[in-house]
Amino acid sequence: LEKGPLLRDRYGLDIGLVGAADSRGAAYCEAGLDLAQVMRLKQSGDTVARYPDAGRLGWRAAEMVATCDADLLLEASPVNLNAGAEPGLTCVRTALRRGIHVVTPNKGPIVLAYRELHDLAAEQGVELRYDGAVAGGLPALYLVRRDLRGARIHRIEAVPNLVTGYVMDLLADGVAWEETLARAHQEGVLEEDPSWDLEGWDAAAKLVILVNSVLDARAGRQHLVQLEDVARTGITGLEPETLRSARAQGMRYRLLAKAECRADGSYRLSVLPEPLLPEHPLGRLGRKQMGVVFSTDIYGTIAAIIDEPDPMPSAASMLRDLLDIMA
Amino acid sequence: LEKGPLLRDRYGLDIGLVGAADSRGAAYCEAGLDLAQVMRLKQSGDTVARYPDAGRLGWRAAEMVATCDADLLLEASPVNLNAGAEPGLTCVRTALRRGIHVVTPNKGPIVLAYRELHDLAAEQGVELRYDGAVAGGLPALYLVRRDLRGARIHRIEAVPNLVTGYVMDLLADGVAWEETLARAHQEGVLEEDPSWDLEGWDAAAKLVILVNSVLDARAGRQHLVQLEDVARTGITGLEPETLRSARAQGMRYRLLAKAECRADGSYRLSVLPEPLLPEHPLGRLGRKQMGVVFSTDIYGTIAAIIDEPDPMPSAASMLRDLLDIMA
Repeated sequence: LEKGPLLRDRYGLDIGLVGAADSRGAAYCEAGLDLAQVMRLKQSGDTVARYPDAGRLGWRAAEMVATCDADLLLEASPVNLNAGAEPGLTCVRTALRRGIHVVTPNKGPIVLAYRELHDLAAEQGVELRYDGAVAGGLPALYLVRRDLRGARIHRIEAVPNLVTGYVMDLLADGVAWEETLARAHQEGVLEEDPSWDLEGWDAAAKLVILVNSVLDARAGRQHLVQLEDVARTGITGLEPETLRSARAQGMRYRLLAKAECRADGSYRLSVLPEPLLPEHPLGRLGRKQMGVVFSTDIYGTIAAIIDEPDPMPSAASMLRDLLDIMA
Repeated sequence: LEKGPLLRDRYGLDIGLVGAADSRGAAYCEAGLDLAQVMRLKQSGDTVARYPDAGRLGWRAAEMVATCDADLLLEASPVNLNAGAEPGLTCVRTALRRGIHVVTPNKGPIVLAYRELHDLAAEQGVELRYDGAVAGGLPALYLVRRDLRGARIHRIEAVPNLVTGYVMDLLADGVAWEETLARAHQEGVLEEDPSWDLEGWDAAAKLVILVNSVLDARAGRQHLVQLEDVARTGITGLEPETLRSARAQGMRYRLLAKAECRADGSYRLSVLPEPLLPEHPLGRLGRKQMGVVFSTDIYGTIAAIIDEPDPMPSAASMLRDLLDIMA
């Protein structure tokens, strides 16, 4: 709604929404849905299935994707690795099979079916983009795919997750674990299943996507990495005293996702809470900041950090992907 | 020489050098020059004009560009704004007119003839790239042109120059001005005319290129900015005592290039030495580091920092540009 005029003026793009789905149903209209109306329905806690005429209760997203006439799918269902990354994976797969571009910040389908989905997109001549899957609005994957081309990446260090830093900072402040988790829930930064973030699964999934983007940029069929390849330690075992004493020594704990290139070109992957000195490129990240550092052979060391005061930048990553495909 | 196999394997690119020029002459051979031989000549302090058979003493770069058969020109002559950005500008213009892509980290031609050169490239259907002109190996311009698309950029802050930070750090260490300049010369970080860096011209030129990249991404013919639009203060007037006392208070001086968006969409430009707190995204830059910060409406605030231990990353920016055009 806000960017419509800019997209028309700057890129000659007139984007119309023809379908929308949520967990209770979907709406589809070839002539287009009214964005303001869709937003009103969602903001009032209702479902798009109640969109006048076009909506149908119980109509599943994947069914709509299987029949709609559209150029591009924006897939943003919750990450769900336990349930085979559904419903996201089926929606993404269905769209690609039908020759529809896909933009998704959903880590699930990309982690579970990286090769299949990329092959499918290539076969169909459509694009699959998921820049928002790693470090929100930070263009981490674009840095790898475009700006670091021609380089060997010796090491990647990333703090790709907000909530773990938030939690560790509160604990270092002296706030108790229970109170800390309650506040994180309240702020909406913690998923319903807190172990996804706190046990480092989220950071590990993002690391896998990041490293596969590096590996995939190489020639030939590289052996891609998987979640199981990450030596993962979450933050739930941390003693608040450890965090407090690190702070007293001028250090800040962050859940660091790391990839170290081995001599054979493969990567050693780990996710581990670490005390960082202020001199570390990620050593002064605030509660709303994420970052990634690439150590390379020819481009020196490049660090990129994002400050996300609200969820907008993560959402905007989908606009970035869309523009990259369409404009 | 080092990246040849990687470029072939990864991108299917087999790059051959057909011509080379320096201030004393040029060499051209349609069948290709031997890179190792060219390098040996230069490293021994000799000229490419003495390349066996292919070299000619006194043959000017621009003349070679006017007659050679090539796909792409890598133009890396020294910045020379006083002399109309020559010989770079003529080489760039000649190449574009002849339908040859141009990659250059030379700020001169881009600052002086931005619109003319872009129009020429567009007419001829070739690419003009100069990512290395701003902050060395940091992909600052690519961030603007690709990753921040769809955004309004409220503010840009940049430390795009190494030598001024180096000089201010030495002064803060208590080293005298003369000794500081001697060391900077010795390290090769200072141009022959030190005023280019120390009076802020270099930072101003980089700011102009950065802001014009932002403005040019908008629809329609924007009013581009020029060097004269930058309120510029160099570092030569700084009292060492000021730098020392800032450091005692935990701050670090950097020559900050800043662009602030006005209500009408134009930018207020300045280059000014400023004491930065450690919390500032550019507040902890070391002597070999440069950085840029973009404050945007939808992508939050994105900071990118590069650590350049040697001149390789700045040189590699030309490879990045080349790959972006050819691969």
